[in-house]
Amino acid sequence: MADPSEQKEKVVKEKKEKVKKEKVVKEKVAKASSSGQKKKDVKKETGLGLSVKKDENFGEWYSEVCKQDMIEYYDISGCYILRPWSMAIWEIMQIFFDAEIKKMKVKNCYFPLFVSPGVLEKEKDHIEGFAPEVAWVTKSGKSDLEVPIAIRPTSETVMYPYYSKWIRGHRDLPLKLNQWCNVVRWEFSNPTPFIRSREFLWQEGHTAFATKAEADEEVLQILELYRRIYEEYLAVPVVKGMKSENEKFAGGLYTTSVEAFIPNTGRGVQGATSHCLGQNFAKMFEINFENEKAETEMVWQNSWAYSTRTIGVMIMTHGDDKGLVLPPKVASVQVVVIPVPYKDANTQGIYDACTATASALCEAGIRAEEDLRDNYSPGWKYSDWEMKGVPLRIEIGPRDLENDQVRTVRRDNGVKEDIPRGSLVEHVKELLEKIQQNMYEVAKQKREACVQEVKTWDEFIKALNEKKLILAPWCDEEEVERDVKARTKGETGAAKTLCSPFDQPELPEGTLCFASGKPAKKWTYWGRSY
Amino acid sequence: MADPSEQKEKVVKEKKEKVKKEKVVKEKVAKASSSGQKKKDVKKETGLGLSVKKDENFGEWYSEVCKQDMIEYYDISGCYILRPWSMAIWEIMQIFFDAEIKKMKVKNCYFPLFVSPGVLEKEKDHIEGFAPEVAWVTKSGKSDLEVPIAIRPTSETVMYPYYSKWIRGHRDLPLKLNQWCNVVRWEFSNPTPFIRSREFLWQEGHTAFATKAEADEEVLQILELYRRIYEEYLAVPVVKGMKSENEKFAGGLYTTSVEAFIPNTGRGVQGATSHCLGQNFAKMFEINFENEKAETEMVWQNSWAYSTRTIGVMIMTHGDDKGLVLPPKVASVQVVVIPVPYKDANTQGIYDACTATASALCEAGIRAEEDLRDNYSPGWKYSDWEMKGVPLRIEIGPRDLENDQVRTVRRDNGVKEDIPRGSLVEHVKELLEKIQQNMYEVAKQKREACVQEVKTWDEFIKALNEKKLILAPWCDEEEVERDVKARTKGETGAAKTLCSPFDQPELPEGTLCFASGKPAKKWTYWGRSY
Repeated sequence: MADPSEQKEKVVKEKKEKVKKEKVVKEKVAKASSSGQKKKDVKKETGLGLSVKKDENFGEWYSEVCKQDMIEYYDISGCYILRPWSMAIWEIMQIFFDAEIKKMKVKNCYFPLFVSPGVLEKEKDHIEGFAPEVAWVTKSGKSDLEVPIAIRPTSETVMYPYYSKWIRGHRDLPLKLNQWCNVVRWEFSNPTPFIRSREFLWQEGHTAFATKAEADEEVLQILELYRRIYEEYLAVPVVKGMKSENEKFAGGLYTTSVEAFIPNTGRGVQGATSHCLGQNFAKMFEINFENEKAETEMVWQNSWAYSTRTIGVMIMTHGDDKGLVLPPKVASVQVVVIPVPYKDANTQGIYDACTATASALCEAGIRAEEDLRDNYSPGWKYSDWEMKGVPLRIEIGPRDLENDQVRTVRRDNGVKEDIPRGSLVEHVKELLEKIQQNMYEVAKQKREACVQEVKTWDEFIKALNEKKLILAPWCDEEEVERDVKARTKGETGAAKTLCSPFDQPELPEGTLCFASGKPAKKWTYWGRSY
Repeated sequence: MADPSEQKEKVVKEKKEKVKKEKVVKEKVAKASSSGQKKKDVKKETGLGLSVKKDENFGEWYSEVCKQDMIEYYDISGCYILRPWSMAIWEIMQIFFDAEIKKMKVKNCYFPLFVSPGVLEKEKDHIEGFAPEVAWVTKSGKSDLEVPIAIRPTSETVMYPYYSKWIRGHRDLPLKLNQWCNVVRWEFSNPTPFIRSREFLWQEGHTAFATKAEADEEVLQILELYRRIYEEYLAVPVVKGMKSENEKFAGGLYTTSVEAFIPNTGRGVQGATSHCLGQNFAKMFEINFENEKAETEMVWQNSWAYSTRTIGVMIMTHGDDKGLVLPPKVASVQVVVIPVPYKDANTQGIYDACTATASALCEAGIRAEEDLRDNYSPGWKYSDWEMKGVPLRIEIGPRDLENDQVRTVRRDNGVKEDIPRGSLVEHVKELLEKIQQNMYEVAKQKREACVQEVKTWDEFIKALNEKKLILAPWCDEEEVERDVKARTKGETGAAKTLCSPFDQPELPEGTLCFASGKPAKKWTYWGRSY
């Protein structure tokens, strides 16, 4: 046996050589799998901070900020990895929404990922809307399938043949089911993390009622939950409204939505939709029931969904040049506690105070964490957690220890405050609520500042070029919307209706449609959109 | 305008004709979509009760009992609809397991459904194990994809290229991720609801450590959680053990599992698996880290999963000739309260007492429901809820009302008991615990009664034909297991190792392998399996 120290040296040498080789290979793999993201990865490792500003290049900024622990780009275009930092946000919203719909007696289920072509194509308008985006499985192992099988883009046609089977009499109604699942829409327009991806996570609710009145009521109950997700959880202001005939769900009766707006790009985002399907699918899938008078009737149906897109809207709304800014209600870490030791100070005491502070907050139900990493400076840690968007930072240094206080720094506005350790929990709770509220208020002000009322075509075009959220009197004719789309087609996409807000401003008698000059029927939001 | 009454008559007539037509069409659809299940549906609608007994035709019995609200057969073979009755069970297990792994600092994430072929095929042993079952997407809309894309059968190869990117230094370890998702394995062997389906739900944990010791420890921690799911939640006894080299996970170092046994068929079921992958994937995907001495090392990895199969094992274990039997801990309805009115009795009083009883139980955290449907007799309701497997039935009739008591009837053993309403909650809590415990004990006794120790080949064959769970001394050689498989091949499938239990009986010096006659190394469970 060789001398142990000699042997060890040999092993070290071998490992070093291996490291070299592996580094080269690893870099190659990283290059291959992240398609050109290499430059920025290196940047991230050597320094901190985003390489572009939100106002200067929004697209680049968004992509960069998403990669701050939220998303990893995947080697299949349009597919993204949801990392724990974003998944935790999804889970928090899920817990809220799932509990709320369970109160409404909605039950969870799971229908298959696959649809046979015959069923998929049953509802003509519906399939026309989705056909170009459907992904098809044609092989298993090395064998061709007898019949190609579609991957669900949404589950109306997956579910409703069984609704027809399960619903026989009025006692079987209402039938209220929901599923949390993935869906696939193989789109070819520019993919964007969270906002437009080929696979995404969502919930889809599918309900059937005996009467239209019940269906109508539920559409709005669900829409209100979607509003709450955006406004109360994500601190993103939204408008509740009705989609136009052109923009409604393919095959449905009418579509309501919550619409958000991104000031930087001047684009609307459809936040979530709650559809009344009417009796259209019921007719196609023969979903009938025997009413109390033993007569056969068709059911009235709804479907409603929100997706991981919510997270993208939140990032776009709140993020800044330092990185993500997470609303406290959805942040998986609400408070980070960072020690700020000085050379002669009681370092251990500071570290202990950080641990104690984080523990005290956790015990009070606040999601807090201490960052005791010894290989980074306090300043580096500040930037790191700012980048990750943690709503509140607590710093503890020698003077804080002496004065029995901690320093708080808000992520949303940078405001610093020294608070006594004795009232830590109450103070932090209050601060988190204030941050949540302020983020919503600021976002709302920014959006309001973009709203532009227009009356004429010229005003419309001017506002569109100024990236405004346009509110215009409209005749509500499909042909006119198509015409507006055609006339505004350009590099940045055509303008279309976003929604007609339920909360309608007064429409004076004789007001004319901005586009057609015909009598206006309602105020409608217009703009380009994601 | 026509006379309203005339018009109404006309509408009724039209509707009736429509009903007829629709009935015919609906029957056609049902026939088409449920492939021959028609006969039984009619049975279910006209009467109650299963058409076959568990002991007489287990396969038919299982299929029928699954259709009691747990599963709906789907029009694509091997895919099933999970109805709310089974989904609720899945969710209860999920809440338990998710909380436990979060305590272990595992974080949830979500990786794409799709894998590119290059990555999928990177680990040779692994892909050999899965290749024949992989479903391939080759088209979107009407266009062929440039490269076919695989649907994940499991996510090792989906995830590990990114582990390689994320893990750089020892401070990045351990990396512990989990995802709740669907996976697809396009198998051609007989599909069975829950037990073997082409798409199923599961969680998959993927962890990476600096040392083998940490990985080894986690393998067993997770396995213990799987044991708890089976034994504490599903009341199904399992054996913890090590899989043989032939049966271990493709590409892994070693596989541990919890194994259940179905006495009726004499088949083992792999309940859940916790794998140590060693450094095999780390090598293929170059998952290296710099240790504290600045040397490059490879990580040690685990992966572990349990799926909706758990629910199938539970149904097989506890179901009886009256239908499902659900363990209280996972039943979405633990107690059903049924009014038993007599003609002259205070019916409203009885109904009110039922509502009050269910409310009192719900308030105490028990999942209770009253069944006040007025179109069914109490007897019909008893059978209905027995079929659905609700653990405890409460009956309230005039005499109960008079005596301020309720009658309880256990689903597991039919035992009836009158309990005073004053101590309702305590009694019911106690009963539910007893039912849970008893279901486990009975299942355990039934399994123990099937265990057969054998020493020779002849004893082995005899025990196999008698559907025993065979415990045999084995030389632990791969060739011998392959040989046993070859020699036992038959209509009902070949026998193989299930696991070598961690809890080993004494193996006297000189004991020989039952199959090869070579010195035995361990006791191993053998049998046919699902």
